[in-house]
Order: sequence, then C-alpha cells, then structure tokens
Amino acid sequence: MPHDLLRSIHGPQDLKKLSIDQLTQVADELRGMILDQITRTGGHFASNLGVIELTIALHYVYDFAYDRLIFDVGHQCYPHKLLTGRQDLFPNLKQKGGMAGFPEPRESEYDLFSVGHAGTSISCATGLAMGDHMKGEDDRHVVNVIGDSSIVNGLAMEGLNFAGTLKRQFLTVLNDNGRAIGDPQGAMAQYFDRVRVSHTLGDIKKAAKNVLDRIPGGGVLEEVYHAGGRILKTAIATDHMFEHFGHVCIGPVDGHDLPYLVDILTEIRDIDRPILLHVKTVKGKGFAPSEQDPFRFHAPKPSQFKQTLPDEMEVSDCRIEKKTAGKSFTNAFSDAMIDLMRKDEKIVAITAAMPDGTGLDKVAPKFPDRTIDCGLCESHGMDMAAGMAKAGIKPFYAVYSTFSQRALDQTFQEVALQDLPVRICMDRAGYVGGDGAPMHGFMDIAMNKVFPKAVMLAASDEPNLRAGLEFMRRYEDNASLIRYPRDTVPTPVQEDVPPFELGKANLVRPGLSSTPDLAILAYGFTVYTAIDAARQLESQGYDIAVYDARFAKPVDLELVRDLTERGVKLMTIEDHARIGGFGSSVLEACNDHGLPTDHIRRLGHPEQWVRHASRADQLAEVGLDVPGVVRSIRAYLDSGVSLPASPSINSAAAT
Amino acid sequence: MPHDLLRSIHGPQDLKKLSIDQLTQVADELRGMILDQITRTGGHFASNLGVIELTIALHYVYDFAYDRLIFDVGHQCYPHKLLTGRQDLFPNLKQKGGMAGFPEPRESEYDLFSVGHAGTSISCATGLAMGDHMKGEDDRHVVNVIGDSSIVNGLAMEGLNFAGTLKRQFLTVLNDNGRAIGDPQGAMAQYFDRVRVSHTLGDIKKAAKNVLDRIPGGGVLEEVYHAGGRILKTAIATDHMFEHFGHVCIGPVDGHDLPYLVDILTEIRDIDRPILLHVKTVKGKGFAPSEQDPFRFHAPKPSQFKQTLPDEMEVSDCRIEKKTAGKSFTNAFSDAMIDLMRKDEKIVAITAAMPDGTGLDKVAPKFPDRTIDCGLCESHGMDMAAGMAKAGIKPFYAVYSTFSQRALDQTFQEVALQDLPVRICMDRAGYVGGDGAPMHGFMDIAMNKVFPKAVMLAASDEPNLRAGLEFMRRYEDNASLIRYPRDTVPTPVQEDVPPFELGKANLVRPGLSSTPDLAILAYGFTVYTAIDAARQLESQGYDIAVYDARFAKPVDLELVRDLTERGVKLMTIEDHARIGGFGSSVLEACNDHGLPTDHIRRLGHPEQWVRHASRADQLAEVGLDVPGVVRSIRAYLDSGVSLPASPSINSAAAT
Repeated sequence: MPHDLLRSIHGPQDLKKLSIDQLTQVADELRGMILDQITRTGGHFASNLGVIELTIALHYVYDFAYDRLIFDVGHQCYPHKLLTGRQDLFPNLKQKGGMAGFPEPRESEYDLFSVGHAGTSISCATGLAMGDHMKGEDDRHVVNVIGDSSIVNGLAMEGLNFAGTLKRQFLTVLNDNGRAIGDPQGAMAQYFDRVRVSHTLGDIKKAAKNVLDRIPGGGVLEEVYHAGGRILKTAIATDHMFEHFGHVCIGPVDGHDLPYLVDILTEIRDIDRPILLHVKTVKGKGFAPSEQDPFRFHAPKPSQFKQTLPDEMEVSDCRIEKKTAGKSFTNAFSDAMIDLMRKDEKIVAITAAMPDGTGLDKVAPKFPDRTIDCGLCESHGMDMAAGMAKAGIKPFYAVYSTFSQRALDQTFQEVALQDLPVRICMDRAGYVGGDGAPMHGFMDIAMNKVFPKAVMLAASDEPNLRAGLEFMRRYEDNASLIRYPRDTVPTPVQEDVPPFELGKANLVRPGLSSTPDLAILAYGFTVYTAIDAARQLESQGYDIAVYDARFAKPVDLELVRDLTERGVKLMTIEDHARIGGFGSSVLEACNDHGLPTDHIRRLGHPEQWVRHASRADQLAEVGLDVPGVVRSIRAYLDSGVSLPASPSINSAAAT
Repeated sequence: MPHDLLRSIHGPQDLKKLSIDQLTQVADELRGMILDQITRTGGHFASNLGVIELTIALHYVYDFAYDRLIFDVGHQCYPHKLLTGRQDLFPNLKQKGGMAGFPEPRESEYDLFSVGHAGTSISCATGLAMGDHMKGEDDRHVVNVIGDSSIVNGLAMEGLNFAGTLKRQFLTVLNDNGRAIGDPQGAMAQYFDRVRVSHTLGDIKKAAKNVLDRIPGGGVLEEVYHAGGRILKTAIATDHMFEHFGHVCIGPVDGHDLPYLVDILTEIRDIDRPILLHVKTVKGKGFAPSEQDPFRFHAPKPSQFKQTLPDEMEVSDCRIEKKTAGKSFTNAFSDAMIDLMRKDEKIVAITAAMPDGTGLDKVAPKFPDRTIDCGLCESHGMDMAAGMAKAGIKPFYAVYSTFSQRALDQTFQEVALQDLPVRICMDRAGYVGGDGAPMHGFMDIAMNKVFPKAVMLAASDEPNLRAGLEFMRRYEDNASLIRYPRDTVPTPVQEDVPPFELGKANLVRPGLSSTPDLAILAYGFTVYTAIDAARQLESQGYDIAVYDARFAKPVDLELVRDLTERGVKLMTIEDHARIGGFGSSVLEACNDHGLPTDHIRRLGHPEQWVRHASRADQLAEVGLDVPGVVRSIRAYLDSGVSLPASPSINSAAAT
C-alpha cells in the first residue's frame, strides 16, 4: 500500500510515536503523496516539497495543539495539513469543499490564520506571544516559518525588529530556498546567497571562539551559547544580519537533514529568547525538474516520483497548473505591454516578485533594462514608480489587485497627492478561484475611488485592454488604474474598439428599440456575462442594451442621465464588492447631480467571504454568472414597478 | 539686524559663495530664526534644530536645483526651506497661504514630494535615480535624509534593500537622534544606541585594517575605500547593520560638526555606489530644554535663544503647540481608555510611535504592561493586535486615521478575514488643520467599509466616545473602528447617552413636529455643527431634526426607511470624503432595500485636496461649518422640489 505509514498519522500525536528512521519514511511518503496529488489537481508545489523535513521536525519537537505555529504566506502548508488530520481533503485541493490551498482555521485548529499575503507571520506571532504572556501562558511556544522572499517584505522586517525586543521564547524559522516566487531581489537576497550552511563547514571550536569574541549583544548570545547543547553550539551564527534585529541567529543549517533538524529544534525549543533559525532548503526537493542542486538530491523511488508531467500540465509560478483553454488576460497584458513599450521608450514595467503572475516574464526578455522586479515589496514598488514618474518616466506597475492593497498609502501620498501619472495594472481583479478569500481582488475600486483626478478603468476583453493601456499611457494628470480578471479573454464583440475617452462608456449591444426595458452598465469582464444574459432575455421577449462602462471613475454621467431621463431602467454589474464599487459610484454620481436612483439595480459581490472553489463556481454562487444575471434582471423587470416617464430631478444638489 | 547673513541667502547659490566660517554663522542664525518663529506660531521644532548643520552642508556640497533631495516625513525641512527662498513664508507657518509644515512642491522646485507619512524617501529616491538613469542623467546626484525612527518602518527597509542593488551614486543620510517621535522601539533602535561616533574615536590605521579584513562585499568596500579621501577612510564603518542591505556604510559621524560634514560629503559626493551616511544629531540642538547632551551644547547667544516659553505654549510631541482652549478628543480618549482598562484587564492599548498624539502617553504610566508602543510600524501594529486578539486579549489600536491607511491590507487579511475583534481607534479623523493634505483622515470609511461584519463608529462628543469604546469592548464578531477628530470635545447635549446599539442612530435634537422639513444624519463631531445649524434654521422658520448616526456600518436602515416613508428629507453630514463615505453608505443601503434616494443630500469633503490652514478654515472652505451647513440646507429646502408623500418603493432589490 502506498503511503502506509503516512495514512496512519491522524495528527501530530501519531507522529510523535515514531522513531527518527520512521520520520524519514514519513518524509518520503509525504513527498510521494504531494507529487501524486499536485500532478493531478495542481497547487503550490515546489515550496511544499522544500519544507517536508522541516515540517515533520517541527511537529515532532513542538506540540502545536497548544504551541503556536504560523506559516508565512501559507502556500507551503501542505505537509503541515497532511500531518494534522486532513489527508481526506487533499484529493479535492483548492476545489469547493476540498482542502484550501492556504492555511484555514475553518479546517483545523492547527491553522491559526487564513492567509495568502506575505510577510505577516512574524508580527502575528509577536501578538500571540504577548497575548499568551498576558494570560500567564508563557509555556506556549511560538514558532513561525517564513521564506527568504517574504522576509524582505517591509512588514516582516517590522515584525522581526519588534520580535527582537521580546524577552521570551520566540522562534522564527527562515526557510531560505534562494528563490521563493520570482528570483529574489534586493541586497538581502545577495547576502543570503553568500552565507553557507554551518554544520557542514563549521567546527565547534571556531563557533565557540566567535561567540565569545562578540561584545555587543554578547550577553544574550553567551547565555544562549551556554544554555544550548553541543549541536546548537556549532551552529550559532556570529555575523548574521538579523543579529542586528535583536535575534540570536542560528545556521544556516541543512533543511533536509531530518535527524539534525530534530536535534537542533530540541535544543532551541525552550530557550527564552527570540531566535532566528536560518534553514537552507531546496525548493522542489525530491522532484528532478525543479531541483537546483543535484548534489543534494535524494533519489526518489520511481513509483513515488513522476519525472514527467501529463500533457495538459505545465510548471508555472512554482505551481503546476492545468493549461487553460484560451488566452489569459495576463498573456494579453504581456502582448499589449510589449507593443506599448516598443512604441514608447519612456515606459517602464514594474512587478513586485510576480513576473509570471503579472505576465512581465514575457516582457522582461524583450526589454531587460525597462522591466524591474523589486521583490516582494509592494509598497516600495509603488514609491519607486512615483519617483520614476517624477523623473519623467512612465511607470506601469503590474500588480495583483489584492496586493495593491499593500500599497494603498503609497498610492495616496506619493502618487495621487502629487498628481503623478503612475499606471497601475491590476491583474486578478475579482474572484480568483482556488486561492480563495485572501486573494480576491474585491476592493480596488472602493479604496482608490477617493483620490481626486485618479482614473479607474476596467478591461472587458483584449482589444479593450489594449485601448485602455493606450489611454493610460497618455493620461498624465494623476494615477490611472486598470483592472482585469484571472480569466481567459473572450472572443471580442468588437475587434476595432473606439479609443478610451475619459469617463465615456461604450455601447456594445444596442437594445432593440431606442428605449429598451433595461440598460446594463457592465464594468470589465462582466460585459460578456451581460451580453450573454441580454441575448437570452431577448429570446424571452425583453429588450436589453449593454454598455461597457469602461470607467468606474469618472462614471459616464451623461449616459446615465440620458437613460434616466428616457425612463430606461439601469443595472450595474461588476466583479467587485457592491459596497464601494462601480455601481455605488453610479449612485453617488446620480445623487450628486440630482438624479434619482430608484431605477438602478447593482450586481456585484455580496457582503460575505467567498471561499476557494473554481472561479466559475464563485461567480455562480453570488449570481454573477449568466443565469444569475438573467434571474436578477427578470426579478427586477417582472416586479411591475415602473419609473415615472419624467423622473423628478432636483436641481439643488449638495455642495 | 538679526539674521543678517541668513536674510541675504535667497537660494543655495548664495550659500555656496560663503566660507566655512560664515556657514557656521548661518547655522546660528537659522537656529535663531526657527526658535523665534516656532515659539510664536508652533510647528515641528526639535527635529529642525537637529538638522541645521546637515542641511547647510548638503546644500553647500550638492546642487539641488539639479540634484535630487528628499527629506523623509519632511517635518525637519524648515532649514531647507529657509535656505531655498522661502523666508517670507515662514511667519505664517502652517497657516493658510503661509509655509507648509511639510515639503511642498507647490512652494518650490527644491521640494519634490508633498509628504508627511514616514519611510517613503528611500523608495521614491530609488525611482528618481532609475528614472534619471534612463534619461541618461546619471550626473544628477540623489540624496535622501531619513530619521532613525523612520528607517525601521517596513517601507524604508524595503527601499534600503532595493537601493543596495543600485550601481550608481545614491546617498541615504541616516539622521540618528536617538528618539525621533516617541521613544525609539525595536531591536534596531537598540543597535543604534550602541554604535558610537567614529571620527572622534577611530583612527585611520584601525579603519583601514578593518576595511581590508572584510571579505563579503569587500570589492565594493575596497573600491570606495580607495576612491575616498583621508576623511572618508577614517569613517567607513565595517560592521554596520546596513552593510547587509548592500550599502557602504559611513559613520556614525557628528551631525553638528559643519566643517566635517562638508568635507565628508565632498568626498562621498561622486562615488558611484549606494552609501549610507550615519549621522548622529541632537534633537533640539541649541535649545536647552530639549537638549539631551550638555557636552555637545554650543552656548547660544541669549538674544537668539529663548530659554523659556510663553505661557500659552507647551512642548509636546517634539513640537511646541498652542494650548487649545478645551479638552481634546485625544485627552478624552486617554481618560476613557484608563477607565476601560481598569474595568477590563484583558484590554491592551497599542500605538505605533504616537503615544503623545494618540493620548496613550497618559495611559502608559497607569498600565505600563498593557500599553505597547511598537515603533513607527503601523502594519506591524495591526498584525500584532491580530495575534493578540487570536490569543484572547482585547487589543485597542490607537492610530491616526491617515496612518491607518498603512495597515489596510493587515486590517483586511489578518483582522477582518479572520473575524478577529481588533479595536481600531482613529484619532485625527477628518481635516487636521496645519499639517495639511498628507495628514487628513479622509478615507477611513471608504477603505474599511467593504469588510463583512466589521463595524464603524464615530464619536460626536466625550460621552459618546466613552459609550462607543464600551460597545467596541463588547463587540467580538470582527474588527470595530471608531473615529474622532483633531478637535476639542463639545459641551455634550446629552450627559447620559444611551448605550451604542449595533447600527442604531441616536436622536439628539427632535424636530418641532413629527414630520420635520428635514432630518440631519450627522456622523461624528459634525453632530454639533448640525445642531447649531438646526437652531439657526429654526429661528428662520424651518423644522429640522438631528440624529447622531453613530454607525457608518451598518447604517440605521430602519430610521432611514421610516423617515423616507414619512416623506422627510434627509441630509447626511460627515468630516470624510463624500465619495465612499457615510452618506454613500446611506445611498447604498437605500438602493439595496428598494428605497429612493432623491430626498437625500450628502455633505462631506469634496473631491479636492484641502491645503494647510486652521481646521476651522478648512471646514469653512468646504462648507462643513455652521454657515455652510445652513446654506446647503436652505438651498435644498428652498428649491421647492418636494418628495411624493408616499415614495415608490420597489420590492425587487438586487441580489
């Protein structure tokens, strides 16, 4: 039977009964189970293979039913999940009702936070440590695991700096695989490259001497040195950069040497000081195609490790994903950017550690000097773009909608308040499918709409994406933001779209008459949902016009006024929260200009978190698929309440 | 004549003509001019006295008409402004039409960004450096000045990490005065405390040996060593924490030794590498009450330096400010928190480097173990609070509304998505007066309203602040946020206010009849503006009721429905952007529930930046003072457009 030993582990309590040799077998079986699964369903891949030994060792040494464990980002939590009673959820990874791709407290008490954004673990862990301390529970160990790409995030560094002041046990494991998501960027990554694994190179005497030579912070270091056992003594680092963050630093140590990890964690466990354990791991460990260092490669059993992938799979962004049927918006963005950068040599493309996800990986080879990956530092990326714009360059910052939340204050102060033309290109706007609630792009309109003179666009298809980007290239008055979903581009209804004109919608499907029963103002990709719904409704005897709204800021007030005055009912549709979204902007514009809103209905995300499932399922769940839109329109039109032909229009709008 | 030499300086070109001895006189005169001014008008104080020599040296060595200079935060920019042609604006510091308290490109081309938030300078500077490089202008030097409290901000660390990869001239001056705003927090601050000024202690041989001993990064270091002159050779640091961020580190050096600063900057100026110059300065240098180190104190001429302050002034938060007439909301918050923490021992108060500004300075002595200053790390503060809430503690995070923008993504993921009851207490919500556009709390509702189950409150006066905080103490379902302005608490209309009840408004001034002409739903402090406006309007024959809305999320739908069905006109008032604000939430709620909005008018911030002036002036400028509200209401009621007695209510609300 495959995975025999692993199948018998229903929680860490079962793991703790095993011998060290058996742990190694568990590692092999975990590797096999993850490989089997990922090649079938996709999911984060290499990062999980890299932390198998580390995760086993952590659960073996600590008791996380009581102690605290947080994985940063969380995409490396599969081994943890498989050891904490969730093997039965694994076959439906990231699917509705299956295992979440990220930590999920709803699944297990072994997961503390549902996350997906990087750099948060250390700070959350300090809060747990302090909270437990206040309750008199100082015996609860606190551990967090963070990758080398995440630790350069500003939030992580803030957390580390604070954690260094704690006077209690606090362990941060730096999982250093040298290339977490994209290539690591920044000076710190170069530092990580230089430091080498200690216990294969160092010897006791040298380490001891180094330790005793240290003066600043020497007190704590000496204390730990004497408290530690033989193994820890050899591994204390004496010139580690995070010493300056107040941590006793240990390592780097080999993250695949399971017996060693168990030993050193055992020695570290009860030391009442903030400790940073620097662990070197190999991303994709055990799977040849994603291994970097053959020397460290433990030959896998052929039955466990597939060496090739099925045809329909591709390795992408550290994941193995099913190839999608059509061209993605991401790919369309790549192509559009390449053409735009050919045309305008002042354009620079920026990503924060997401070259694959944003499509800039295809741009970079063509324009190596004008494509910049600033690492997992979204805030920095925005300010760097602001500086460039100030210098007269045209920055296009490609960023997931959800991650743009991390640069909001920079978008406000360094961009919008300065009237600087930074172009923000938001991929993954709307529901994102399997990555679930942490990753939906659901609030980009709400949070950016308050900035005077900033403009907000959405791309419904590839020609509109191109036209929108061209508009942004020329818009110099302030920030411009465009959004598009994690989806395939539809076959366009218009190949030759009219250029974007500030605040002007585009009629994409005229009604049958000049006063249709209803006009849909659709924002972004939902234009195509609206068109399909309109077609179906037409066959049922309704007359529906569809507009591509194009702009959420400013909204096309003239169009809304015209339709309103002609007595046409309106429906807005968007793949964004209804609160604070495009439809809400239409309400605000109407109210500001003395127009009524009775005749307006708004479709969008309801006020609830939508969990992992396919994107299509998520849209259907909230009624943003074609049947849902048809239902909503029929419910509205069939209710029999009509507008007055000439609605009362108040001229005295508020200041 | 006082400030003779300084008065003759109309720009850096005049400064450059002077001898080193004359520069020292300029420093004395700057100190005198700033002291004279600040004791009259208030303004950032000690930070400016600390950077006088540094600022003179920078302008003497560089040419910032072409080169790039950014001050982080910018509150230390007065000497810079006085040397760049703005002495005539100084007498009206922070007043309408006078000198802005922060860098302001509208005043001078020597200011590149209008800022006020910390940690942004390095990232913006990298953008300038790269932008200039792309234009072939590598001869433009790029310099930024950042304080020791700011450099621990995550964004600054992201910037530093990126800057370390630049292959061109790039200078970051670390202005280390050991206690920038509050007391410095975190491990890094402890590190800064340990390192000592080099050129008074070190000697050439020792530095040279240390440099040559270095291996990692030694190439660059050697290169700089050989390129540098005699002075630089003595000052290169060989074990500085920011070496790991890819910088050649120099210092710490004495930031008040003007000839030395000129020499070392001259030697550094043209080195084509990222350099961090660590400068130790004394905050408040030259003014005895705020000096820390008498040994470094250069005796000032009595005529130039006032040793005592006029009665109506107080030194506060590194500033000297006019005492305000009444009790501030900040003080009311202090008192309320003390009472709350006495009552509930699970409560913890958190600030991010703003103990004075948030009022926690009065809480800390009473509850030293339950009041935490996490340093200038707003994002970390939010996640630490999330961790505490997860551990069952009740965190109250006191933060300026504008700075809460820096923790938005953490509020989303680590708090709201987890349903964790973190209490966010937002001071400075609304217009802030002299600090101007970077500091207004204008978007806290817009950006937080999208989170399901989060609740948003506002405090109109002290009894309501207390009742609101008590509500938050008991609200456990998700985040709760309360806002209050930088203002004095009004004499309450109700001493005994009813407890806050989720989503329920409070009638504070009934109309004359059961169907008044208009009902005002006022959010927060504007309740009192509304009451005064209603009183005036009553004398003019209008019947106006006033409600304290209390909640922006959820809004009191039943009240709105009732008023609407009774044909009462509505006006919302808030000290927040009209876009995405409380009034907008009322529109959304109405639209969601089939209510019309024709009868609703919304007062709030218009879509424009409001510059520095008094808070009263700012409110008047946008019509949020009593006369403005009276005008708006009269304009509305006098327009003669009435609502139908029974407005059409559509039952088929959107999904």
